[in-house]
Amino acid sequence: MMNENAKKVPSVVVKRLPRYYRYLGELLKQDVKRISSNALSNKMNVTASQIRQDFNYFGGFGQQGYGYNVEYLYNEIGDILGLHDGDTTVIIGAGNLGRALASHDTFEKRGFKLIGIFDNDKNVIGTIINGIEVMSVDFLKSFVTQNRVDIGILTVPKSAVFKTAETLVECGVKGLLNFSYTELNFDKEVAVENVHLSDPLMTLSYKIKQNKAEF
Amino acid sequence: MMNENAKKVPSVVVKRLPRYYRYLGELLKQDVKRISSNALSNKMNVTASQIRQDFNYFGGFGQQGYGYNVEYLYNEIGDILGLHDGDTTVIIGAGNLGRALASHDTFEKRGFKLIGIFDNDKNVIGTIINGIEVMSVDFLKSFVTQNRVDIGILTVPKSAVFKTAETLVECGVKGLLNFSYTELNFDKEVAVENVHLSDPLMTLSYKIKQNKAEF
Repeated sequence: MMNENAKKVPSVVVKRLPRYYRYLGELLKQDVKRISSNALSNKMNVTASQIRQDFNYFGGFGQQGYGYNVEYLYNEIGDILGLHDGDTTVIIGAGNLGRALASHDTFEKRGFKLIGIFDNDKNVIGTIINGIEVMSVDFLKSFVTQNRVDIGILTVPKSAVFKTAETLVECGVKGLLNFSYTELNFDKEVAVENVHLSDPLMTLSYKIKQNKAEF
Repeated sequence: MMNENAKKVPSVVVKRLPRYYRYLGELLKQDVKRISSNALSNKMNVTASQIRQDFNYFGGFGQQGYGYNVEYLYNEIGDILGLHDGDTTVIIGAGNLGRALASHDTFEKRGFKLIGIFDNDKNVIGTIINGIEVMSVDFLKSFVTQNRVDIGILTVPKSAVFKTAETLVECGVKGLLNFSYTELNFDKEVAVENVHLSDPLMTLSYKIKQNKAEF
């Protein structure tokens, strides 16, 4: 049922799901059992009707006048996001950003398992990051073929990203998280998220400009 | 005029502006002079009517049946985003992520000027990143007071983020780009963008799950 419905979910709604998930996780930590869409709305700076509308794409999660069950909602959204599927990841490019992501324990907390880190720099190969030894990219193909790798995280330079991405896709990777300041697009079975770290800086700059006009 | 209109711009539209800007920059590099909203739509995976609707928030940029002038549109969007304001930045936290951002030349290309990097680790203070010597956080307050700093980029651990953010705000910083896996919120004059690097990974996971159901 979920999949039938989920296909129609607009990408702006999908992009809000991680935020709901994070926020519900915080509530759980604080031992909050139930929350109304109004209270959720106040805390999250989204209108209550927006929240209800978003949740309706997934069946509404059964709020019946007395609020959402926080733990149920957290688990449902986690399930929708595929966080219970145990997806494995590899990072290609062990520069500063690759190292930052490899050491980023939130990825693991969200259910992703980092199983390999690759680089082409002799000085980096063999070093240990977060308990994992950096391998040569020469072994990328055989590693991804021999292990179940769901997601490739690309922190290689722009010049290397297309070739690296194609290798991963050929070897059956299902998704690419691309930090290489380019737009990757694959048809069919390969999901891609292109992350541009300068985008939030530009959005911030917009907000600053608006504030200057206001105050 | 722009500011009056701009206040009503929904945040989803604002979040699309950096993408338009990046894409128009690519077109400029390829020496493309004009582009129709249909062609822009195909390339960007956004409907043409969405593009027109988005641009209408800012006066429409005068497409009159024969396409948008790429350079004009690029400059207008850059202006709306405040990229021509010469905003200065400091990075607090010279760990892997701070180093990655400091070395990230796209920030400079977008018009931001990095003028200081701070850390509290003796082994890091005094090292040079991208031509800038890392200073002790002990000097943060005096530096921000004595120099015009518009934006603080926070890559400090969660435990240090609130104190660091408050120091910056007290010293007159206008915006905070927060990578510390927490939600910062300041009322009034301080703009904040909270960046969660695991959000795009969760969105990717969602897409992978959808693909699995489909293929």
